[in-house]
Amino acid sequence: MQFKISKELLEQINSLILENNEKELHDLLHELHYADIAEIMEELDEDGARYVFNTLDSEKTADILLELDDEVRVNILKQLSAKEIAEEIDELDTDDAADIIAELPESKKEQVISELEDVEHAKDIVDLLRYDEDTAGGLMGKELVKVNENWNVLTCVKEMRSQAEHVTRVHSIYVVDDDNRLKGRLSLKDLLTTSTKTPISEVYIKKVDYVKVNTPNVEVARIMQKYDLEAIPVVDEMNRLVGRVTIDDVVDVIKEEADKDYQMAAGITQDVEAGDSVLEMIKGRLPWLLIGMVIELIASLVLQDNQTSVQQYSTLMIFVPLLSATAGNIGVQASAIVVQGLANGSLKQFSKNYFSKELMVAMISGTIISSFLFLYHSIMYKQYLVGLAISTSMVVVILFAATLGTLVPLFLHKNKIDPAIATGPFITTTNDVFGIMIYFGIARMILGY
Amino acid sequence: MQFKISKELLEQINSLILENNEKELHDLLHELHYADIAEIMEELDEDGARYVFNTLDSEKTADILLELDDEVRVNILKQLSAKEIAEEIDELDTDDAADIIAELPESKKEQVISELEDVEHAKDIVDLLRYDEDTAGGLMGKELVKVNENWNVLTCVKEMRSQAEHVTRVHSIYVVDDDNRLKGRLSLKDLLTTSTKTPISEVYIKKVDYVKVNTPNVEVARIMQKYDLEAIPVVDEMNRLVGRVTIDDVVDVIKEEADKDYQMAAGITQDVEAGDSVLEMIKGRLPWLLIGMVIELIASLVLQDNQTSVQQYSTLMIFVPLLSATAGNIGVQASAIVVQGLANGSLKQFSKNYFSKELMVAMISGTIISSFLFLYHSIMYKQYLVGLAISTSMVVVILFAATLGTLVPLFLHKNKIDPAIATGPFITTTNDVFGIMIYFGIARMILGY
Repeated sequence: MQFKISKELLEQINSLILENNEKELHDLLHELHYADIAEIMEELDEDGARYVFNTLDSEKTADILLELDDEVRVNILKQLSAKEIAEEIDELDTDDAADIIAELPESKKEQVISELEDVEHAKDIVDLLRYDEDTAGGLMGKELVKVNENWNVLTCVKEMRSQAEHVTRVHSIYVVDDDNRLKGRLSLKDLLTTSTKTPISEVYIKKVDYVKVNTPNVEVARIMQKYDLEAIPVVDEMNRLVGRVTIDDVVDVIKEEADKDYQMAAGITQDVEAGDSVLEMIKGRLPWLLIGMVIELIASLVLQDNQTSVQQYSTLMIFVPLLSATAGNIGVQASAIVVQGLANGSLKQFSKNYFSKELMVAMISGTIISSFLFLYHSIMYKQYLVGLAISTSMVVVILFAATLGTLVPLFLHKNKIDPAIATGPFITTTNDVFGIMIYFGIARMILGY
Repeated sequence: MQFKISKELLEQINSLILENNEKELHDLLHELHYADIAEIMEELDEDGARYVFNTLDSEKTADILLELDDEVRVNILKQLSAKEIAEEIDELDTDDAADIIAELPESKKEQVISELEDVEHAKDIVDLLRYDEDTAGGLMGKELVKVNENWNVLTCVKEMRSQAEHVTRVHSIYVVDDDNRLKGRLSLKDLLTTSTKTPISEVYIKKVDYVKVNTPNVEVARIMQKYDLEAIPVVDEMNRLVGRVTIDDVVDVIKEEADKDYQMAAGITQDVEAGDSVLEMIKGRLPWLLIGMVIELIASLVLQDNQTSVQQYSTLMIFVPLLSATAGNIGVQASAIVVQGLANGSLKQFSKNYFSKELMVAMISGTIISSFLFLYHSIMYKQYLVGLAISTSMVVVILFAATLGTLVPLFLHKNKIDPAIATGPFITTTNDVFGIMIYFGIARMILGY
């Protein structure tokens, strides 16, 4: 069942487009999954993607829209009238619908909403547009199955059948009171195995996990993962059931968070992707490059300061790249482990235990590296005192880098700043500068220049 | 409903343990979710964690075992007899049970399996232990609801009720033929809304996504994400239905993959965590530090080679850290975007388009950085030709780093090596060395020394 786009398939599609052969193109694509068609469209040029989109049945196009890369989607939406977009949106779940509408230009947004056919659906979407996209409210959909605590099992099953029409997947059945306040949940299994006359109040489970509309989406992801939930109900300030978040939306949040950390470690500010334009790439990358450059200018001043005085110890200078690279490497290792520990909860704050373990790691690694270095230097240059100065300061620099690498992310976390910044170029270049200062400081002490 | 471990709670638990007050401890913890109790146990010392585990009801302990960090779980399992472990395992789903058994020492494994009460369950677990843990077979569980294509809706509902006893969550109902070969799936909704006498063959959906037992787990994750699946059936070589993978297991795969990439970028080989011992940390970190050191030794030779001849152009040397840091930063940026592009499928192989875009970004960023540098150098040192040499070679080094950063991960990917390696210290230090070579080469050309 694995679908792979082949060169042949793309060529066939392209030539069908050139021939303007709508029918055969339709027959070719009609059997494919919408996610596969979206993948194909991303490989075509703008006009080709539009052409393919226009030949497809309306039941498929809505799902395709959702799967497309932002760039291709914008290109498709541009050519559609408000009425046509509304027709697509009518096919989508409320959360997905709201996501697409949120991307539209302000003027088109209202037009599209006014063209929506299903008024209830439209109301739900408008409601969802109000929430911050980084909260449970921004993540949730309105499609859910709920029953009143005062009903019995039979009424429930009947009601569920009609509600389930609008719900693609039934994750849980939520129980509410007359004011729509969340009381608990029902398992499908219990419902299937209980006599039809039993009142719901007797069978429902009163313990139910939930989040508030303003719970941050990373927190929603954490809770759903921790408690192994496939869906979680969302309540408003008055505890009224207003929506539900499903695991597939949370998977996206988890991936985005991981991507963000990775990009920060690589010194990229915004959410830069391979498909972005040159300008967007520069906007996301140049700032860190410039910050790194400015910090390294300080390093150049330190070197300059020491340059004349160390001409007699010429090897000092040539080990500067080795020293700063090693300091950078160990610093990044230290902070990456802290950042991941904070992210998965295995580390919560500064812990003496953890810190001394990290120092131990740095001490042992540093001693091994410095011993090698001393040996190498002794064999190559036979200046043992200089070798001693270099290898001693190497140990100190490594310890310092490990300390900075551990404490900075913890400090950032404590001050509610994303600790992942600490794995990026800001800290590595800062490590460089401090490392070079310490290096020459210790060399000066040992060699007495 | 958010549970947060408070210091007070931990102190209370610790003093109850000291008082040997099992009853009150039980009452205190009994209401909590197993994931929360696991979190508490991770905060206690070894003996405390064991004490808590022993006071709890057996229905909860199995789930707690599953949630615990590896280290704490090993500590708990050590003190349990094979029979006690078997009792815990009897409570678990087959996939989770197999995961725990796989962690046991070889000798204990067999004992535990022989003590399992439910023979069917034991058979399933033994079967699962055969599969490589990085494949669909290693990820899947045996719990699923399946019906025969020759049944009617009524038989189905009856059979489902009895099967559902063993299945915590019903994701999909799979349809098989008499030889257990996967034919399709049934939606719960259709089953609820179809007359009981209808034969299954008339209502089931023939299109069903599936994976083979030996499909790699990252591929399973990709498919489930792409097609938005909450569960996917797993078939053997003869297309017989042998299990199913659920989205929560795939969430773990996604997180592990992201963590692995992140750690590789940070120069950590194994799966090092904040909770690991000093020795494990060193084993995971020292290799990259040593590799980085050896590569940087080459840089020291290049510097040494140039040192005497550039004493007349003293500022050349002091900008080496700036140059190598900038090259490192832009190289990591370039490869991080490629690595992510390959991971999310937006980049599939070398593309002229993408490469020229990256070169454009490097060219523009390089020109901006070099212009600043030329200005700074001119103001500070007033040696315009040296400034020109430094800033020219900066542009070339940046272009080179961007090229290496783009091509290396693509090359690794093409040769089936994890491209994430390219964001780690190996490439950054290599970039350093080449950068320094290019730098002095160009300076030599321009300054003619």
